[in-house]
Amino acid sequence: MHTLTVNLADRSYPILIGSGLLKQQGALDAYLPSDDVLVVSNESIAPLYLHGLTELLGDRRVATAILADGEQHKTLATLESVLNRLVAAGFNRDCTVIGLGGGVVGDVAGLAAGVYQRGVNFIQVPTTLLAQVDSSVGGKTAVNHPQGKNLIGVFHQPSCVLADTQTLDSLPDRELAAGLAEVVKYGLIMDAEFFDWLEANADKLIARDAESLELAIRKSCATKAAVVAADEREQGQRALLNLGHTFGHAIERCLGYGEWLHGEAVAAGMCMAAGLSERIGWLEAGSAARIAAVLASMGLPVQPPAIDAKALYQAMTLDKKVIAGEIRLVLLKGIGEAIVTADYPEAELRTELDASLAAA
Amino acid sequence: MHTLTVNLADRSYPILIGSGLLKQQGALDAYLPSDDVLVVSNESIAPLYLHGLTELLGDRRVATAILADGEQHKTLATLESVLNRLVAAGFNRDCTVIGLGGGVVGDVAGLAAGVYQRGVNFIQVPTTLLAQVDSSVGGKTAVNHPQGKNLIGVFHQPSCVLADTQTLDSLPDRELAAGLAEVVKYGLIMDAEFFDWLEANADKLIARDAESLELAIRKSCATKAAVVAADEREQGQRALLNLGHTFGHAIERCLGYGEWLHGEAVAAGMCMAAGLSERIGWLEAGSAARIAAVLASMGLPVQPPAIDAKALYQAMTLDKKVIAGEIRLVLLKGIGEAIVTADYPEAELRTELDASLAAA
Repeated sequence: MHTLTVNLADRSYPILIGSGLLKQQGALDAYLPSDDVLVVSNESIAPLYLHGLTELLGDRRVATAILADGEQHKTLATLESVLNRLVAAGFNRDCTVIGLGGGVVGDVAGLAAGVYQRGVNFIQVPTTLLAQVDSSVGGKTAVNHPQGKNLIGVFHQPSCVLADTQTLDSLPDRELAAGLAEVVKYGLIMDAEFFDWLEANADKLIARDAESLELAIRKSCATKAAVVAADEREQGQRALLNLGHTFGHAIERCLGYGEWLHGEAVAAGMCMAAGLSERIGWLEAGSAARIAAVLASMGLPVQPPAIDAKALYQAMTLDKKVIAGEIRLVLLKGIGEAIVTADYPEAELRTELDASLAAA
Repeated sequence: MHTLTVNLADRSYPILIGSGLLKQQGALDAYLPSDDVLVVSNESIAPLYLHGLTELLGDRRVATAILADGEQHKTLATLESVLNRLVAAGFNRDCTVIGLGGGVVGDVAGLAAGVYQRGVNFIQVPTTLLAQVDSSVGGKTAVNHPQGKNLIGVFHQPSCVLADTQTLDSLPDRELAAGLAEVVKYGLIMDAEFFDWLEANADKLIARDAESLELAIRKSCATKAAVVAADEREQGQRALLNLGHTFGHAIERCLGYGEWLHGEAVAAGMCMAAGLSERIGWLEAGSAARIAAVLASMGLPVQPPAIDAKALYQAMTLDKKVIAGEIRLVLLKGIGEAIVTADYPEAELRTELDASLAAA
């Protein structure tokens, strides 16, 4: 087992990474001061891992909230149903909420923990690659609004993240690929060497080579932990983690949530960010093609779906990163070097959208 | 104008107290970096002060969310309606939410600001005495759940609190008295001298003597600011501010929210806390009667309404301050000295409930 620490002063917490952790008695005890535990999971994941997790909880009082599966259920109504479970169980401020599942489960469980009684203890047990490398680290929680993704949420750090790599065995290929999109992101934003490694090992990763996957998870979590520690509330550097996301969220919004997986939209979004970066002369010619080739080799889309360019642009303006009307984007100065900026010609952004959509 | 500072490191903020502040051009400018402002108010307060507040906002883009008046509207559904206004206005992470009104408006507006885009700038403009001395200071926000008060919320500190004492002119007598209950609380928990002053000046306060009210507000805010600065997230000392509240919340829950005003329930609750404290020998004989006399002179109830003792006890067990099944109460060691404790004979609590209800 590897342990990484996210350094956030009195809210620091460990990320435990390893194979079979959900079968290690006592693995969570240090982070579970509560007698009362609500496990939030979904109808796909609960049958696989809920029993094992419950074994780890010993004789604590355990209630469950089993959500319908899918991004379309990441809503205020679902949040309310989880809060109702906490109230119905009679749980107080000293309870713990555990999120067992992918990003949607983690986001809803984390938000419930963040707002129940103004904040209770929270543990993440991510069971998808995307959640293990991204959404479970950093304390962002949210639900979607019909008009926009993640518009309602809080920052609420977990007391522990337990990433059992064995849970990836049950992950569909498409979701594995979607998780790899975020792994590639870490290389692109600040680690050219890691990007080279990913380029060389993409085949092993999609073949689920255990050692390669564990290395990719460790590397990704370490990068994310460092970024989050430096900038917990996304005032600066943390925004780099949104490479491809302003484009990606807009794709998801235009298509309707759940049509494409988040990681798929981010993959296409990163290609558009790279395309724009190359278009304005920041990124060496050929780099965007190289990035697209890695993502394509992982089975990810490298163009947006066939949607209207104006609608896509409009959807980008509702992004949380829009400040004073300017669409701030994460762009690349090179592979391994990203910046957040609104300092690009808007016409070039529109050209990039048109070009990407023409290729779609 | 008096300015008090709530010291919370990078979240420190001022409380501006004075008569006519809502007519002082530029009063809010230092705390309003936003072009986009949502004013949350209610149908009683908006006709009185919304126009004046809007004048202070200059040429900023202003949207409004006008809530129905009353504690029964402090719900998730109301929160959602406020969030819908923010989305419909197209406001981003750089917007400001202003709560103009009493405790309910402040709590809903603060929670909306706390969860919209994971937290946006927030300003409190309290227009009731209760809100000026209590709920607008300290960053607690919440809505009620059908099964319990304030069960859903976050800590979200405002960037500024503007308390214009002129707004109290329009406050009904009953609400003025409810606010005074919280003022008395500050004397009881940590300032015997202030309690003496309140005892001597209760008649001036209910007669709305401007100077006396302003002094009471300043003193109350200063006490609350000091307590909050020492213990932002209610791990310790801050719980003292809940004197009378575990009893009071239980009364509100049993009666149905909105039947009694919060301050009325707290007044009766403080009498019960004082009664129990005297019963177990912590408070000098006669002190509970002295406390009740001050509250009664302000027109406040000093006994609970006629409800079932078992239901009242049961309602107390759902309080947020219940830890591991124990009902922790704020009790008095003397006038001006409170402690949080579960170290009292449970039978005495039941006796106090029976005795208070018998007098009801």
